[in-house]
Amino acid sequence: MKRPKLECVRCGREFPLELVNARCRDCDEPLEVRYDVDSISRDSFERPMEGPFFERYAPFYSYLKTDPSLSLGEGWTSLIRANHLSEKLRLKELLFKNETQNPTWTFKDRGTALSLQNAFSLGYRRIGTLSSGNMGASVAAFGSRAGMDTFILLKENVPGEKIDALAVYGVKAIRVSGNYGDVYNKTSELGNRFDIYFSISDEPMRVEGYKSLAFEICEQMSWEPPDYIALPVGSGGLCRGVLKGFEELHAVGLVDTVPRFIGAQTEGCSPTVDAYEKGIDRIERFTNPLTLDHVLENPYPPSGNQVIRKIRSNGGILLKVRNDEILSAQVLLAHEGIFAQPASATALAGVIRCAEKGLLAEDARVVTVVTGSGLKYPPVLREFGFSPTSTSLDDLLRTVERLIE
Amino acid sequence: MKRPKLECVRCGREFPLELVNARCRDCDEPLEVRYDVDSISRDSFERPMEGPFFERYAPFYSYLKTDPSLSLGEGWTSLIRANHLSEKLRLKELLFKNETQNPTWTFKDRGTALSLQNAFSLGYRRIGTLSSGNMGASVAAFGSRAGMDTFILLKENVPGEKIDALAVYGVKAIRVSGNYGDVYNKTSELGNRFDIYFSISDEPMRVEGYKSLAFEICEQMSWEPPDYIALPVGSGGLCRGVLKGFEELHAVGLVDTVPRFIGAQTEGCSPTVDAYEKGIDRIERFTNPLTLDHVLENPYPPSGNQVIRKIRSNGGILLKVRNDEILSAQVLLAHEGIFAQPASATALAGVIRCAEKGLLAEDARVVTVVTGSGLKYPPVLREFGFSPTSTSLDDLLRTVERLIE
Repeated sequence: MKRPKLECVRCGREFPLELVNARCRDCDEPLEVRYDVDSISRDSFERPMEGPFFERYAPFYSYLKTDPSLSLGEGWTSLIRANHLSEKLRLKELLFKNETQNPTWTFKDRGTALSLQNAFSLGYRRIGTLSSGNMGASVAAFGSRAGMDTFILLKENVPGEKIDALAVYGVKAIRVSGNYGDVYNKTSELGNRFDIYFSISDEPMRVEGYKSLAFEICEQMSWEPPDYIALPVGSGGLCRGVLKGFEELHAVGLVDTVPRFIGAQTEGCSPTVDAYEKGIDRIERFTNPLTLDHVLENPYPPSGNQVIRKIRSNGGILLKVRNDEILSAQVLLAHEGIFAQPASATALAGVIRCAEKGLLAEDARVVTVVTGSGLKYPPVLREFGFSPTSTSLDDLLRTVERLIE
Repeated sequence: MKRPKLECVRCGREFPLELVNARCRDCDEPLEVRYDVDSISRDSFERPMEGPFFERYAPFYSYLKTDPSLSLGEGWTSLIRANHLSEKLRLKELLFKNETQNPTWTFKDRGTALSLQNAFSLGYRRIGTLSSGNMGASVAAFGSRAGMDTFILLKENVPGEKIDALAVYGVKAIRVSGNYGDVYNKTSELGNRFDIYFSISDEPMRVEGYKSLAFEICEQMSWEPPDYIALPVGSGGLCRGVLKGFEELHAVGLVDTVPRFIGAQTEGCSPTVDAYEKGIDRIERFTNPLTLDHVLENPYPPSGNQVIRKIRSNGGILLKVRNDEILSAQVLLAHEGIFAQPASATALAGVIRCAEKGLLAEDARVVTVVTGSGLKYPPVLREFGFSPTSTSLDDLLRTVERLIE
């Protein structure tokens, strides 16, 4: 059996599995976990599995020593069918993987859970991240639970309400002035100097956490994967992780095909899509990014190049959608019963655009990953410009009668 | 086999199962589902179960025709161990049932799911509720998904952000001026006149939905229930439901004991506790209720009398806690990794008070129900008075060094 290792996603250069806070020194590309997938037996999955995803799908995490007491019950989120939209979009099946049911209400918890396990087993007592939003809250929750000294680096202009939602976990929040990309680059030095395990957006273990989404989707669909997986593309870590999961299932022979991926960005920040459309291999920094909820606002995604390479070889689609399409998708998703944040609705907006343009195979089965809760960023709700009907108690019956369909 | 029916919780008067929008005409007390629990076999649960809770625990919902396509993946939330607090409180085990992982991030979804199933199977095409918060959002999500004409009655002074979070589901929101209790009483007339199924706080099917919490807790604890269940007490529906679940498990012989219940209210609204402490049977209207997040702010809980009767015969504890105890419990809960709304932290505050006063049995195993997400009511976060450390990029290393423990 081959020894597990880290490998540059571009040049294949090898690094020890224990290396943290690092990218490839030659390519400045992210590293990825490589282990002996071929030794996994299909038979491992013939009985029901239990516990956190890293125990449930243990053979795919065999390189890691894990401690379930650090888990917050992440994963095993619902996969629910669209009741209204499938027919409208002429899809055979449209399903939503509802990641808002995670412990801090976003998919980030899967990645954080695995980073935390790795940090703990390597003996780290300090963990950190760079995020003013979902990832920050996720690392704060897991770090606090594990009793780790937890550092959350924030953008200079982070709104007060996001800080409050971190403060409750009792972590060390540090607002850093200066360019976000420069702060990102600094985490490596910071981590190595002070023994802080930085779980940033496309850290290898974070990507390993995200691959559990593929396993669950397949198990929930009785190991008959969909034709397409749709997801929002920010840093690129989620897309890489889920695709890696499907590729590993395919390598083991648990599924016959790998779904094609639909990756969506918003016009307000589309560096990955822009490079993809130009046919180039390296993303260029996006100037003045501005998105509805600031979640997909990374001007220079650290896994952008790799996402382009992977989507090309996967035969998938990378596209950008407008804000009005995103808000419309957010409402359609709510009509199915899921209130998602705009960044999550971006994926559904991409599916709708593809369906309307006839880009999808006939009778397609599509799974859309709903990445995070709509409660994460309430101000955007103002966009709906809604106001309720008002009435006195005496007029209530007449008012209801008037509103009945 | 006896025919399932509704029964007054106080006088035992029987009503048909199909009756909706009603209380007992003699007692003005809530009705409860009665069916042939004795015919359930222990053996039904010897193999792993699947699907929504009403399928997973189907024998306990045998009186109902259900349609899983209306489900939003409610239930089967995590039960996680406290990593820091058990020892501090000298408990053998302290666990949190994390209901913030439900589709609209509160326990209400279990009740709504079952009300919706009942409404649908009885042929209703309209559903409604009276709520400015969690229950409103829950009914809106399920109603929208089911394609029902959905009516949410709101208090006159409901804040704009709560309205926005309902608006996204595309439902009919009606702000009603006048006394809340009077509006509650009006729902019955409104429902019967316009064929609207009102799923209000202690509606019989809602209570039936909540009993699934008992089933899951027992299954997650390998059918060895805890010594205590702690929960917040508002309208009383949750407490009644969970207790009914344990009693049914006990009747079937799936568990040997029924846990003792710890029901907590806040000093800002404690009608049930006040009546309990006075040793009287009927709650009195609480004047000028004011709670941290307005969730437990029902001055005249419709199931209050029944909660008092049940907790007395259960040998449980009803107590009230102060706002500072609630906020402190909210922080302690966050340190375990769960960011809950203050109403949820009320239950943990009750456990802490009981533990510190030596009111709990030695080596007690306690499960606290964490009812809803902290993201539901962000303004309360201001109470933490937290502000992050600020630094320039150049000073980042020195700043981190200074903060290291």
